[in-house]
Amino acid sequence: MKIEDRASAIIYGVGPVLEALRAGTRSVEKILVAASAHHARLNALREMARVCGVPVLRVPRVELERLAAHANHQGVVAFVAAARYAEATELLDRLAKQIGTADPPLALVLDRIEDPRNLGAIVRTAECVGAHAVFIPTRHAAGLTDAAAKTAAGALEYVPVARVANIAQLAEEFKQRHIWTVGTAQDGELVYTDWDWTQPCALFLGSEGEGLRRLVRERCDVVVRIPLRGRTESLNVSVAAGAILFEALRQRAVAGLA
Amino acid sequence: MKIEDRASAIIYGVGPVLEALRAGTRSVEKILVAASAHHARLNALREMARVCGVPVLRVPRVELERLAAHANHQGVVAFVAAARYAEATELLDRLAKQIGTADPPLALVLDRIEDPRNLGAIVRTAECVGAHAVFIPTRHAAGLTDAAAKTAAGALEYVPVARVANIAQLAEEFKQRHIWTVGTAQDGELVYTDWDWTQPCALFLGSEGEGLRRLVRERCDVVVRIPLRGRTESLNVSVAAGAILFEALRQRAVAGLA
Repeated sequence: MKIEDRASAIIYGVGPVLEALRAGTRSVEKILVAASAHHARLNALREMARVCGVPVLRVPRVELERLAAHANHQGVVAFVAAARYAEATELLDRLAKQIGTADPPLALVLDRIEDPRNLGAIVRTAECVGAHAVFIPTRHAAGLTDAAAKTAAGALEYVPVARVANIAQLAEEFKQRHIWTVGTAQDGELVYTDWDWTQPCALFLGSEGEGLRRLVRERCDVVVRIPLRGRTESLNVSVAAGAILFEALRQRAVAGLA
Repeated sequence: MKIEDRASAIIYGVGPVLEALRAGTRSVEKILVAASAHHARLNALREMARVCGVPVLRVPRVELERLAAHANHQGVVAFVAAARYAEATELLDRLAKQIGTADPPLALVLDRIEDPRNLGAIVRTAECVGAHAVFIPTRHAAGLTDAAAKTAAGALEYVPVARVANIAQLAEEFKQRHIWTVGTAQDGELVYTDWDWTQPCALFLGSEGEGLRRLVRERCDVVVRIPLRGRTESLNVSVAAGAILFEALRQRAVAGLA
């Protein structure tokens, strides 16, 4: 089922709503709070909403259940302007401008990741390590849905996400801008810790089940692997992304980069 | 009550629940007692639960009706774990025996992680990096529920999980066995990549919201931090666990350990 068409018209949970208010980059239109809600940070949220001039309405909890069915909304739902995708070419050009600076470009490309919570988790981790952009395909992939926004825990306010029709073509766009394209696969030719992540890089991650598509993998400059020791050999894609991103961050710190 | 906290099975009735507590072969996660219950052996059950460290919660009778529809539950329902727990002391002794081998002990201690999916995700990552054990508290923490088992994706078959009543006391047990206790906190004294993970280590992780409790933190030999670059500064606990575990694996690989 594709739920990607449901843009994040609402966000829910005390933390994400507070974060959206703080960031101020998205216009929060109004906030609904369940009459029975009693979260510890609810007063902080009300105060922040007051400062931002955003109306807060008390509604029956059943109303929130209807809006955020099955989600852990903590009694708080906010209506926001639809989640904006960044424009891909603009984003690529912005990344290229960071080459040679103390903050070399580090981008993520997610090929066909279908679980919006994995997308959200990866965006959240990307934000924490200071990655600059996330690219996803227009089709056959989770988009910035409610679930993705909730799992991203506010990180969507800071990490631009762009959609492209063709991921293999995107690899060429990176190369033209002198950004290394690094694929990931269980049988990659290089251990991920042996790659030099202080360089301008775009990390390509495939879906959990199938990995990178052959067409995409063949366009990558290098394909790295994460050596595992367990017997299940099945790493969650957001944990795999985390392992590599934290290694990139470690190397950049060692190199004295910003 | 959180639905996702539901264990794989429930048992009901005063006699069967008492029996399960006595036998100890099935791990009773928690017991719900109807506010209106007044069975003669209820006090015996409460006492046995206390001895076994199993929380007993009073709930409206309608809640039990929902869980054990049409069954003669006598006002008592118990949740049992989806997987078997390991015995803590046995597990500690097994870890101690690995000291000096090519596979030095690496354990995880999760203090009050309440989302069973986070527990499952961490066990899954632990398995992938070859960690040897996971310890969780008996109370105020997710147990091996269905949701945990599902997220663990089979890893529970290979990584033993033990429950202990007192996490601070557990730290002492590690120290007595010459295993380093390494806490984590945003203001830890050491960057996690600067710690020597080739040593026998037990990594202590706190809950997402609150981190390690002060009492636990004070017992740790060292407290490490994960330096972040983002603006949200809010790392998912399973990603934090992954970052550190993969660093441990990297260091052990560099050191030529198994």
